Amino acid sequence: MIMQPSELLAALRFRYATKAFDPVRKIAVETWEVIEESLVLTPSSFGLQPWKFLVVQNMETREKLKAASWGQGQVTDASHLVVFTVRTDLEQVDIDSWVARLSEVQGKPLEALAGFSGIISSFCCAMSPAEKQAWNTRQVYIALGQLMTAAAVMGIDTCPLEGISPADYDSILALPGSGYTTAVACVLGYRSADDKYATEPKARFAAGKVVSRV
Amino acid sequence: MIMQPSELLAALRFRYATKAFDPVRKIAVETWEVIEESLVLTPSSFGLQPWKFLVVQNMETREKLKAASWGQGQVTDASHLVVFTVRTDLEQVDIDSWVARLSEVQGKPLEALAGFSGIISSFCCAMSPAEKQAWNTRQVYIALGQLMTAAAVMGIDTCPLEGISPADYDSILALPGSGYTTAVACVLGYRSADDKYATEPKARFAAGKVVSRV
Repeated sequence: MIMQPSELLAALRFRYATKAFDPVRKIAVETWEVIEESLVLTPSSFGLQPWKFLVVQNMETREKLKAASWGQGQVTDASHLVVFTVRTDLEQVDIDSWVARLSEVQGKPLEALAGFSGIISSFCCAMSPAEKQAWNTRQVYIALGQLMTAAAVMGIDTCPLEGISPADYDSILALPGSGYTTAVACVLGYRSADDKYATEPKARFAAGKVVSRV
Repeated sequence: MIMQPSELLAALRFRYATKAFDPVRKIAVETWEVIEESLVLTPSSFGLQPWKFLVVQNMETREKLKAASWGQGQVTDASHLVVFTVRTDLEQVDIDSWVARLSEVQGKPLEALAGFSGIISSFCCAMSPAEKQAWNTRQVYIALGQLMTAAAVMGIDTCPLEGISPADYDSILALPGSGYTTAVACVLGYRSADDKYATEPKARFAAGKVVSRV
């Protein structure tokens, strides 16, 4: 049931930022449902999950988003597109909503969670809205990392998209006023047989430059 | 060789922020080498890898880091501790170093990469050092996400550590002046049989609250 280290390594070496997707081949419905669930299961600080993941299926919207992504073909050619949005703030209502959910799922009375709730509130109070948004954005990058790795171990290709206009994405996705804003995006699907990037040697710094045992 | 969706889901559901590790059980050497390689293989914007991963093995150092982590026992009890550090800036020398590596690995002359190098420089020039550090920090959270997911699919437990004092970590790890600073940490190993958090129901918002198809 679990992966052997050599299998994981093969999956991570197989993955690359796919530039050309096979526009015909789609991710199977039941596989996609697991991918969405992997987004839901992403760990976050205090469990706050300060995000919404938008799976953009409407092709007209994807055409508009492509124009807000330097015209990158992946935005429309890939099987699926996920836009990672984050809360622009973190308010008591967000904390209360999470603590209520925790109470519900774990069957604990709210009073038993008051201490935990207080710790989160104190932590959040110390930050400005801009700092909270920056913190939320870091959290959502955990989701991006988990998504790309989860896809890779299932043999699904991805391309993270930072080269986008978040303001244009927000406008196209009607986010202004919602309390959420675009952080980053990622497309998923299957590489095209003629993506020249697929066969280039994988380039990373030598391990000795980025990993030190101390 | 690849994971079935149901297997991935089981692995992600099995993982949780482990609070109590078995202090005796260690990650096997050959498995650890793959985990380090998974850090090396983390995707980053433009491939810049603006990070260093410190694997802290010295127990005296880990005791000091524990004190800078609200005394959390995982810091010393877990098999391994990784401190994620990021560049405090991004300078032309960082870009040149990456482009030189790319040239070496992919066998392309530097002149062929001049356009790519110029794009990165223009992008980085538009940011202040603080913005560059914030960007680097977001990138390293991809590594955190990839690490936790990679560990989970191999049946290894993790606990991300944001509740640390980065300034104290920096000082203990002699980072000031190195151009790198602590962003976040993560411990890895195997859960203790008596970690009460292991058996609590996994709590996340309902999928409908955090995933929308549009």
